[in-house]
Amino acid sequence: MAEVSSVSPLAPKEFPSLSQIDGVELFSAPIGEGYHGRNNLFFARFIEGTCVAGVLTKSKCPSAPIDWCRENLGYGLARGLVVNAGNANAFVGNVGALTVQHTAVAAAKMLGCSTSEIFISSTGVIGEPLDHEPLVDALKKAPQLPADFEAAANAIRTTDTFAKGAGAQFDLDGVSVSISGIAKGSGMIAPDMATMLSYVFTDVPISVEILRTLLKDANAFSFNAITVDSDTSTSDTCLVFATGAAKARGVEPIVSPEDPRCADFKQALSAVLKDLALQIIRDGEGATKMMVVKVSGAVSDLSADIVARSIANSPLVKTALAGEDANWGRVVAAIGKAGEPAERDKLQIRFGDLLVAKNGFRSAAYTEEDASQYMKSDEIQISVDLGVGDGNATIYGCDLTHGYISINGDYRS
Amino acid sequence: MAEVSSVSPLAPKEFPSLSQIDGVELFSAPIGEGYHGRNNLFFARFIEGTCVAGVLTKSKCPSAPIDWCRENLGYGLARGLVVNAGNANAFVGNVGALTVQHTAVAAAKMLGCSTSEIFISSTGVIGEPLDHEPLVDALKKAPQLPADFEAAANAIRTTDTFAKGAGAQFDLDGVSVSISGIAKGSGMIAPDMATMLSYVFTDVPISVEILRTLLKDANAFSFNAITVDSDTSTSDTCLVFATGAAKARGVEPIVSPEDPRCADFKQALSAVLKDLALQIIRDGEGATKMMVVKVSGAVSDLSADIVARSIANSPLVKTALAGEDANWGRVVAAIGKAGEPAERDKLQIRFGDLLVAKNGFRSAAYTEEDASQYMKSDEIQISVDLGVGDGNATIYGCDLTHGYISINGDYRS
Repeated sequence: MAEVSSVSPLAPKEFPSLSQIDGVELFSAPIGEGYHGRNNLFFARFIEGTCVAGVLTKSKCPSAPIDWCRENLGYGLARGLVVNAGNANAFVGNVGALTVQHTAVAAAKMLGCSTSEIFISSTGVIGEPLDHEPLVDALKKAPQLPADFEAAANAIRTTDTFAKGAGAQFDLDGVSVSISGIAKGSGMIAPDMATMLSYVFTDVPISVEILRTLLKDANAFSFNAITVDSDTSTSDTCLVFATGAAKARGVEPIVSPEDPRCADFKQALSAVLKDLALQIIRDGEGATKMMVVKVSGAVSDLSADIVARSIANSPLVKTALAGEDANWGRVVAAIGKAGEPAERDKLQIRFGDLLVAKNGFRSAAYTEEDASQYMKSDEIQISVDLGVGDGNATIYGCDLTHGYISINGDYRS
Repeated sequence: MAEVSSVSPLAPKEFPSLSQIDGVELFSAPIGEGYHGRNNLFFARFIEGTCVAGVLTKSKCPSAPIDWCRENLGYGLARGLVVNAGNANAFVGNVGALTVQHTAVAAAKMLGCSTSEIFISSTGVIGEPLDHEPLVDALKKAPQLPADFEAAANAIRTTDTFAKGAGAQFDLDGVSVSISGIAKGSGMIAPDMATMLSYVFTDVPISVEILRTLLKDANAFSFNAITVDSDTSTSDTCLVFATGAAKARGVEPIVSPEDPRCADFKQALSAVLKDLALQIIRDGEGATKMMVVKVSGAVSDLSADIVARSIANSPLVKTALAGEDANWGRVVAAIGKAGEPAERDKLQIRFGDLLVAKNGFRSAAYTEEDASQYMKSDEIQISVDLGVGDGNATIYGCDLTHGYISINGDYRS
């Protein structure tokens, strides 16, 4: 792997201050020598009654931990979470499932619970068997090594150049409750109904059915709306754990989808997931600019989404951003190749507030100078109106630079 | 545009020797000062009775010349072909159609034919109006400037680092007949039912209906099976002109799809188109290695095609090739993200003849040394068996290098 060297130029200045979540304890430890000298095991312990909802990769070649989580999410109860960085435990045949089993048995024994309440994730190289012994050894030592959210976020990094966290505090029934989450991801990012790895914790008492629904909705506009390189991972995972501990402070459980507090919770959860998702974009491998693609006027939201992804994933649009070149001709080509209904002679394209093209022709107001100035920003917004309907979508991406080639030209070696 | 500097390391040693085609005359000229000092107008004149078939981009934002050719291909007769390089005449509103009209009128007047028999292509920057006056001036001078196929192929280059040609000679009715073709293309290459620009000429007498059918079939396994960067152009065009001049030498016209000579012609045409298509890959922007992806065992040929494209377009697979890293884990991820039916625990992956993975696990015979040695080749074959059916497909691609970023980070400026 290429050395994780300098921090992304788009990184936030510092790790945010996140609320401790009642009912959650965090730990981190090194597995063997650790990963590039860093802790690479993250372990979390939950109080009894914690429920969990998750979205997982739709990859047809999922990792062994994905298979494990998919099964346990059906039960919806969680007591423990074990995550290792450096090895994805993916595409290693039966060995992969055995490693997961050994890990889950050890964790369940430590916590006095069922293995169905243990959630497991792995991130890193694909195709290398993951030895369970050093992993289980580290797990056993973990309870002596408490961690805060920043330490936990650091323990799940691979090519990430910074630890990613986001949180929210809001009132329910006059009581302050919290959501705190962490994520990792930098390359192989084009999540399909999930992200790379993200873990979100809350003390809100809420039924698992409602938690599932709210997560699915919030995920669609956050992790599922980002793409670094159009490559979907075998291990994408987002899990939300709700301990319900705020019930002791007088918060009535949310058990009905009609409960007006669902909207408050969803708003806070969505904000946290979106913040984490954009941090992954801001740490896109080699990224120097974030790209926000807004498509409107499509025949449907799905159609807008396809066009927006076509633009955000176009290597030619991405390299134009890297070169600070307002090359809107490449945006036109990316719209065209998407194959979705569009009216060439009604197309409107904006870079930021600058009207670049209108009615299928370069705008009279367009000047190369204004556009070049705008392209120097580190966040570029490309807005496209297709002129054929009311569908819209927003997708977040980044530029494609020499840094991406350098990082991935010798990742394994 | 980045300077067209050194020739691709994958370029053929020299331009092939191509047969002159009876009934075809070639010319090339500079438009104004030319393009980077090169001739950038290609003009071809055909004898009366020449028929033409073509495949054009499916982009929803096609260039003005594409609209023009689509209409004229319906008639199927050709007397002239005019191609300019440096400006794609795309996304310039009504101005684009006017430029095409002016050009066609001038050419038709020179040749004493209908404008419906004039075919026009443009390649280069998108979104800049193309002035018809210098173009028509150059066209008028062209008949004094005869060219051979190599000169014609040079006149249609943009970021291409070498001129691309391919030909075939074979016997029909005991008479030697020929196919000679040229092409251009290097970036924005993921043709959708067509290529960047390719022009193929033959003296075989053949009906336009049969020519269309044979072109469509041959195209599917040549131009439509290549991808440099997954970006489909607004201008992709492949036109085949059949002068029928070999009739004078005793070749009976091919007018029935049951004519056994169709197979001979199709075989020769397919070989020429595939040769040209692979030359485009060998001139992929920044390419240092060609990638051949063969997928078998899919539920259908279409499913195999989707998986093969997912691998060939994966930035992570492409950068692994650039780094000479046998990173088959990224191949697994690309298979997984394609979303097509695949059996993880039956998957088989080969790099060249090396069995890398079998039954969802690294092969016992695999050694890193053998794989690293193989990755040094300049043509890498990745073969995948999905283990679920009989569908198969082959897609041709190339690696993703710093060269691609350099070329496209400042294309316009």
